Amino acid sequence: MRNIMVEIEYDGTNYSGWQIQQNANTVQAEVLKAIKKITNQEVKMHASGRTDAGVHAKGQVANFYMDYPIPVEGFKKVINKFLPNDIAILNVKEVPLTFHARYNVVSKRYIYKIYNNTTRSPLMFNYSYHVSPKINIDIIKEGTRILEGTHDFKSFVTSGSTAKNTVRTIYNIQVEQVGNMIILSFHGNGFLYNMVRNIVGTLVEMSIGKKDIKQLEKILNMKDRKAAGHKAPPQGLFLDKVFY
Amino acid sequence: MRNIMVEIEYDGTNYSGWQIQQNANTVQAEVLKAIKKITNQEVKMHASGRTDAGVHAKGQVANFYMDYPIPVEGFKKVINKFLPNDIAILNVKEVPLTFHARYNVVSKRYIYKIYNNTTRSPLMFNYSYHVSPKINIDIIKEGTRILEGTHDFKSFVTSGSTAKNTVRTIYNIQVEQVGNMIILSFHGNGFLYNMVRNIVGTLVEMSIGKKDIKQLEKILNMKDRKAAGHKAPPQGLFLDKVFY
Repeated sequence: MRNIMVEIEYDGTNYSGWQIQQNANTVQAEVLKAIKKITNQEVKMHASGRTDAGVHAKGQVANFYMDYPIPVEGFKKVINKFLPNDIAILNVKEVPLTFHARYNVVSKRYIYKIYNNTTRSPLMFNYSYHVSPKINIDIIKEGTRILEGTHDFKSFVTSGSTAKNTVRTIYNIQVEQVGNMIILSFHGNGFLYNMVRNIVGTLVEMSIGKKDIKQLEKILNMKDRKAAGHKAPPQGLFLDKVFY
Repeated sequence: MRNIMVEIEYDGTNYSGWQIQQNANTVQAEVLKAIKKITNQEVKMHASGRTDAGVHAKGQVANFYMDYPIPVEGFKKVINKFLPNDIAILNVKEVPLTFHARYNVVSKRYIYKIYNNTTRSPLMFNYSYHVSPKINIDIIKEGTRILEGTHDFKSFVTSGSTAKNTVRTIYNIQVEQVGNMIILSFHGNGFLYNMVRNIVGTLVEMSIGKKDIKQLEKILNMKDRKAAGHKAPPQGLFLDKVFY
């Protein structure tokens, strides 16, 4: 048996997220379908984590087990022919049987893009969060400095999460502005369900004067999702890289 | 009667081009439909030029005539609510009755994006031309220097064009590389039908060793479409700005 690791880029616009489910168009279902066309096998696959409907990935990682003796480079070429254009396998590697794409994650990097302009950008509509009111980027930066480090992020978890331990470490959050686009890059040892989107929604509210940045520490301490701001929409989020 | 000029951004992926036509989903049809919802009038509209199916615009310009007394800022807000998310009016201006979006064009800028990597990028698939073989960017740059200036571009016009005079001036072509993306920016006094795409297709062939760059001047002099290279696909092309 071989254990194959794949790195996957996808445009999440037309999918109901990563995870396979009945009666829904998912990225994982497309990848499994393409593998079956090559190997004629139903394989078992683990991903680094799920992504929600509309969320994108530049470097999702998954592993699966197969007997089929195809070389990895040939496998990459063929599977990309069987996949739709909005999904592609960027890298294929044979890894030790003990490797597990979820359990072995060391850290992850997510990118969140905010398009800040009175009028929406049609070309960026599916790839960013359109915020009309003027954002004060200094407030975003101030907020990210408070959030960096080890905290209990319970206030930023969407209910329904199964995580018992809600303490995570964010190594750093980079904030960059390119024209009307504000790009946040989060690198941390793990992220709770909707954590990045709930953080971004809260920072946006503070940066447009709807909430006071001085409350951010209090929000963390309250450990209550209702204390934080809204959940930013999925289309601004990109799973950028998974580190092992 | 008022003459209204609009600047329009659109993601051309889901449209059969700009120009209104029967039984096809076009950008102009959507804009006219939205105007009718506001004014209850069928207006007459001129654009700076057509764009083909799949081609995008960051700054298409059109003008139309209407009686309706709405202020331009209010008009911009309302029409963007009536337009689909992949089309937006960025600017609205009342202009003299003599202004005509096509006849009064002074120059235009087009951008063409090439994604150069062995594997396609799903996130860039609808917004660039995927070229797998390694591109020698120095050859692209050498070619653009030959093409800049005033030339008869007949070799780069797709047949079916109604233009009698095929002499145009390209003021400059900028070439920039950002990661795997090669971005060409063409500024000229006018562009013939498919001229940018036929130029890009030809330069790509030369940059991957399929055609000799030394033949480029000869191709220009032959004034024969068959002498040049293939037409690069529509999704890499963006009408960036129209100058008046």
